[in-house]
Amino acid sequence: VTGEFDAIAAIRATLPGPPAGETWIGDDAAVVHAPRGDWLLLAADTMVAGVHADLSLTGLDDLGWKAVVSNVSDIAAMGGDPVHVLVTIAGPPGTDLLALYRGIASAAAAYGCPVVGGDLANANDLVVTVAITGVVEGAPVLRSGARPGDAIWVTGALGASAAGLRHYRSNAARAARHSELDELLRAHARPRAAVAEGRAARLAGATAMIDVSDGLAADLGHLAEASGVGFALERVPVAAGATLAEAMGGGEDYVLVFTAPDDRKVIRAFRGLREPERIGVCTGSSAERSLEGRPLVVSGWEHRW
Amino acid sequence: VTGEFDAIAAIRATLPGPPAGETWIGDDAAVVHAPRGDWLLLAADTMVAGVHADLSLTGLDDLGWKAVVSNVSDIAAMGGDPVHVLVTIAGPPGTDLLALYRGIASAAAAYGCPVVGGDLANANDLVVTVAITGVVEGAPVLRSGARPGDAIWVTGALGASAAGLRHYRSNAARAARHSELDELLRAHARPRAAVAEGRAARLAGATAMIDVSDGLAADLGHLAEASGVGFALERVPVAAGATLAEAMGGGEDYVLVFTAPDDRKVIRAFRGLREPERIGVCTGSSAERSLEGRPLVVSGWEHRW
Repeated sequence: VTGEFDAIAAIRATLPGPPAGETWIGDDAAVVHAPRGDWLLLAADTMVAGVHADLSLTGLDDLGWKAVVSNVSDIAAMGGDPVHVLVTIAGPPGTDLLALYRGIASAAAAYGCPVVGGDLANANDLVVTVAITGVVEGAPVLRSGARPGDAIWVTGALGASAAGLRHYRSNAARAARHSELDELLRAHARPRAAVAEGRAARLAGATAMIDVSDGLAADLGHLAEASGVGFALERVPVAAGATLAEAMGGGEDYVLVFTAPDDRKVIRAFRGLREPERIGVCTGSSAERSLEGRPLVVSGWEHRW
Repeated sequence: VTGEFDAIAAIRATLPGPPAGETWIGDDAAVVHAPRGDWLLLAADTMVAGVHADLSLTGLDDLGWKAVVSNVSDIAAMGGDPVHVLVTIAGPPGTDLLALYRGIASAAAAYGCPVVGGDLANANDLVVTVAITGVVEGAPVLRSGARPGDAIWVTGALGASAAGLRHYRSNAARAARHSELDELLRAHARPRAAVAEGRAARLAGATAMIDVSDGLAADLGHLAEASGVGFALERVPVAAGATLAEAMGGGEDYVLVFTAPDDRKVIRAFRGLREPERIGVCTGSSAERSLEGRPLVVSGWEHRW
């Protein structure tokens, strides 16, 4: 057990420092160059140990990684690029802050959004809150611009995170965890944010976009509701080893779903990236939610209040 | 008990909406006009019920107010102006989110920094995390620029918040709470951030500045350490009804402490505002921490890790 200021000094030593002229950790606020461009993107997400992550299955470093990536994914879902993050940790004395920060620092480095400040406070629960800034060239892609007739695309297969969690919960996978970490376990413990794909979707003329954090059905439902359209899905790409239910309702895949009127423009914009999959179409019946012609029961993760 | 999305809709109805072209609550990230100016300020602070606020003494609305004001104060301590806040709440089902948001919305309106986004998640503890953006014209005032010979100033009397907490803890004050809320109780429940004063200090050529959140002795100690100077205090303005110990170690006053080489420039810059008080001088002996010629024992709030 150590004091807050020693803990901050130890954390700071593990993180990159600011460029000349900027001030990051260690003052009342971080001072960063004002971003160029017309728009600043701002988002914040919280991860609660025991709610968003089972620490008997995955590590504190994985929790730190996911807390950053879930925010990066929010910026990606606007077609933007992440710039800086602030990390706030409330937790009990004895929490291995350096393990948590290993994951935070890895994700911040992977996505080019350094940690410039934050806060530490004591609480019984471990609560990791990340706030992020992002920038976007031109107009950001909102949830609300989809029109009837637009095609619906996803940037990858779905359900891997939920299937990974299922595997973690089996003892066999737990034993194999460190030596044979497969794609599904990794998808759950170390999800990726689709920043390049979000940018490509924006350049392809995407009319609306959202990231799949609560489940495809629920998140596409949010997009459809914000846009005032319905949707008819023809097929959904299910990750190898995952079930259709995991793909539709599992969440935390951080795949992007977007709508766009021009298929050829989409294919062109994604050259050099993994090709997105066209999964259906927006319809003019705003209440429509269907898969292969059958009504879809929408369920997804929701906190209780 | 309601769902997360209904709760968000209810909260959103209590908050002002965005100007044309901007998107606030309800998308993956908020879209705001990129701030003009050279520098963007970023900070985040967490308030944990039971640690930073005793909910048997003060209300959820007060906790919401304080969570915003502690962040505004961080921007003020750089000589900047707050622009936007993100509010993230982790807490148990049944938490009166609308009471909490009454305080958040009041503070956001009072300081001109609207809530543009955030997150809600379940946890056992109630943890309110606010992230803030700010702007500053010209150079921000860091903690590290104080030089030997600079005078030390505070923007108000100290100890009121700690004295207010002491009064709340007495039964008499608890009974009188709603009808006779005096200055001290208010200082504890509804502290103010010194934004205009921070701006004036910057214009007065302040060389270093910090807000008093952990106690004058501790926070001035952080400034002195960052600047490599010592300090000799001649006197400390104690709020009416507070003790010297409360002034030196109580914290949460959100008064600003700054250093500046030119007294007349300070007096001039604060015209129209409450005049700051000159409490001492920075010295070249970097280990010096004294009050009225006697060594000062520095103690202040620190979380345990």
